[in-house]
Amino acid sequence: MRLHYLPGTAAMAPHATLVEVGVSYELVRVERDADRRVAEEYLALNPWGKIPTLEDGDVVLTESAAICLYLAEKFPDACLAPPAGTLERAELYRWLFWLSNTVQMTLMRHFYPERYGTAGVEEAADADLAEHFDLTDRHLAGREWIVGEERTVVDLFLFMLTRWGRFLEPAAWERPNLRRHWLRALELPGVRKMIEEQGLELPAFARSTDA
Amino acid sequence: MRLHYLPGTAAMAPHATLVEVGVSYELVRVERDADRRVAEEYLALNPWGKIPTLEDGDVVLTESAAICLYLAEKFPDACLAPPAGTLERAELYRWLFWLSNTVQMTLMRHFYPERYGTAGVEEAADADLAEHFDLTDRHLAGREWIVGEERTVVDLFLFMLTRWGRFLEPAAWERPNLRRHWLRALELPGVRKMIEEQGLELPAFARSTDA
Repeated sequence: MRLHYLPGTAAMAPHATLVEVGVSYELVRVERDADRRVAEEYLALNPWGKIPTLEDGDVVLTESAAICLYLAEKFPDACLAPPAGTLERAELYRWLFWLSNTVQMTLMRHFYPERYGTAGVEEAADADLAEHFDLTDRHLAGREWIVGEERTVVDLFLFMLTRWGRFLEPAAWERPNLRRHWLRALELPGVRKMIEEQGLELPAFARSTDA
Repeated sequence: MRLHYLPGTAAMAPHATLVEVGVSYELVRVERDADRRVAEEYLALNPWGKIPTLEDGDVVLTESAAICLYLAEKFPDACLAPPAGTLERAELYRWLFWLSNTVQMTLMRHFYPERYGTAGVEEAADADLAEHFDLTDRHLAGREWIVGEERTVVDLFLFMLTRWGRFLEPAAWERPNLRRHWLRALELPGVRKMIEEQGLELPAFARSTDA
């Protein structure tokens, strides 16, 4: 396994996890230029550009919390996560997502306020969202679902976020692959029933496919 | 199972997941007053106050993505997540964390820019962080680790975030339970070795415990 890292970054938790599971690993320091831009080779490995990245054979994994969880599952003897289906496992997920989506992200606002639009929070958010939905749209080119060949919880989650993105200019679902994914997810029994039970309106392009 | 929800909120994905796994469930609409504050009974169930909450026997689970993952694991026949340890499982984690910590959070900045300090991004972030670390400190009262009786990846993740919070006023680790947790995590072989290999400095209160 190889962990691409920089000291003190979000590589800390995956690095500690590698030691705790007892696997042998190599540390590779990410090179950055004077403008803190990472080298081209790193972008080839991890187009998202963020640090860290874990290489494990065919797996090239980003997102600090995802790497921790992946390693905990791959090496169950280290007991770094309670068994699936237990109360403790549920608690682990709750805390890990909250620390990642709320505490870590708020720390980013503390460290890098300029990224969050000191001159306009919403404008900065909209520019970021355009990038996020573009990236997701590119990933979906030639694919039916986000991961593998079948729908997973990620698709249900993305369906929700794409709908939330309907007020952006352009709306998230104006992207061709993202729109196809949204319509495909809309055919799932779970999404259909949820839409009905919550009484949510469908956009015109989705209503017309019923006709 | 009972899902506490409001239409169109982050309850959408867990709701669709409940249908997809085929379990019977009850929907409970969260009551809010004119100021959008949730009722006291809901806060008693979920002190974080956010929507949705899943009740499954002893499990009272919050965080939309955590609920989806918990249900996918509890009902493996629904094939809503690839098997643990596979390339696809790693991909699922990567996407689910990114959608939750980056896309969903950026959508929040779009919808609620006023929460992100239009008059001062860093000031708003610091106020939020004080709440987050206070909440975590209270949770750790009388506990050694965040979940269950043993250290998990959540503790390794929290160790990293608590260190990042050293520049706040007061620093995150000025809270007594959080400091004890940080020192306890520092004794783990994985954390020790990571600190050494990354060449990170320890705060004075941690150096003195070595003496």
